Amino acid sequence: MTLSMYQAAIPPMIRSLNSLVGILEKGAAYAEAKKIEPQVLIGFRLYPDMFPLSKQVQIASDIARRGAARLAGVEAPAMEDKETTFPELITRLKDTVAYLETLTPEQIDGTEKKTIELPVGSETLTFDGQSFLLYFVLPNVYFHVTTAYDILRHCGVEVGKRDYLGVA
Amino acid sequence: MTLSMYQAAIPPMIRSLNSLVGILEKGAAYAEAKKIEPQVLIGFRLYPDMFPLSKQVQIASDIARRGAARLAGVEAPAMEDKETTFPELITRLKDTVAYLETLTPEQIDGTEKKTIELPVGSETLTFDGQSFLLYFVLPNVYFHVTTAYDILRHCGVEVGKRDYLGVA
Repeated sequence: MTLSMYQAAIPPMIRSLNSLVGILEKGAAYAEAKKIEPQVLIGFRLYPDMFPLSKQVQIASDIARRGAARLAGVEAPAMEDKETTFPELITRLKDTVAYLETLTPEQIDGTEKKTIELPVGSETLTFDGQSFLLYFVLPNVYFHVTTAYDILRHCGVEVGKRDYLGVA
Repeated sequence: MTLSMYQAAIPPMIRSLNSLVGILEKGAAYAEAKKIEPQVLIGFRLYPDMFPLSKQVQIASDIARRGAARLAGVEAPAMEDKETTFPELITRLKDTVAYLETLTPEQIDGTEKKTIELPVGSETLTFDGQSFLLYFVLPNVYFHVTTAYDILRHCGVEVGKRDYLGVA
């Protein structure tokens, strides 16, 4: 068996988003144990002009969902950015995973050379499918999952590398 | 052309480590402009029991270097963790990139099913090559590059997503 676009994209993103569910669950438990308003953690930022935890989670969901859909040539389901609680953010991630699970190897495999046009502000970035996956989608998903982790770690939540890497 | 283990591993890690060079250069310039001792940034941690910036950089180098070498079935060059300045950390990353550039598609391609045994403390984790790359090496490299970015961002260095994603 050789590596394929599906295998490189979908199961690793599902793993990472599921790990983020576990990390958020630890954040929610920590808030409760320490009598911290959950909104303090959800709105926490590592710097004033950086996105808060909630937005890190929403972007991880967006990049994974839309990235996979673009490769498959389908429209990703819209999700409004209206989550304000840990359970809502967790539901967003579970819905994203459920969507990724609907995509099949037949839809994603063989998209290495597919032209992907990505609107970014007033620009359009053009990738082939392989570069889009390897240099945009995966690094971006890991960026936002890690930054969500870093925000909660910075706030004292006891998460570790195993929570980030997840399990098979 | 179909995706291969080499393409999924080596050029993306080179891209990410080169991006981290640029991020550290901005950190060094910021320290100089703000008259901050560079050691303050290099030793900065997001939480007291989390690794400082220097160690994040060293681990990103280790995972990339050793991960690629394990797939190729060769011994990675040893690197001592003795960097204490921005220029030394940048040299560490450039040496790591130079090493990755010596590895060839012939050495890495076709390693999907290769057994990889990874000593972690007193345990040994066993992966096949594809799982090792997709679920251990890549997420780990992105974790440490992102956390290095997050530490500097938290300290006020003006880095953005383009610095993280890098350019072709």
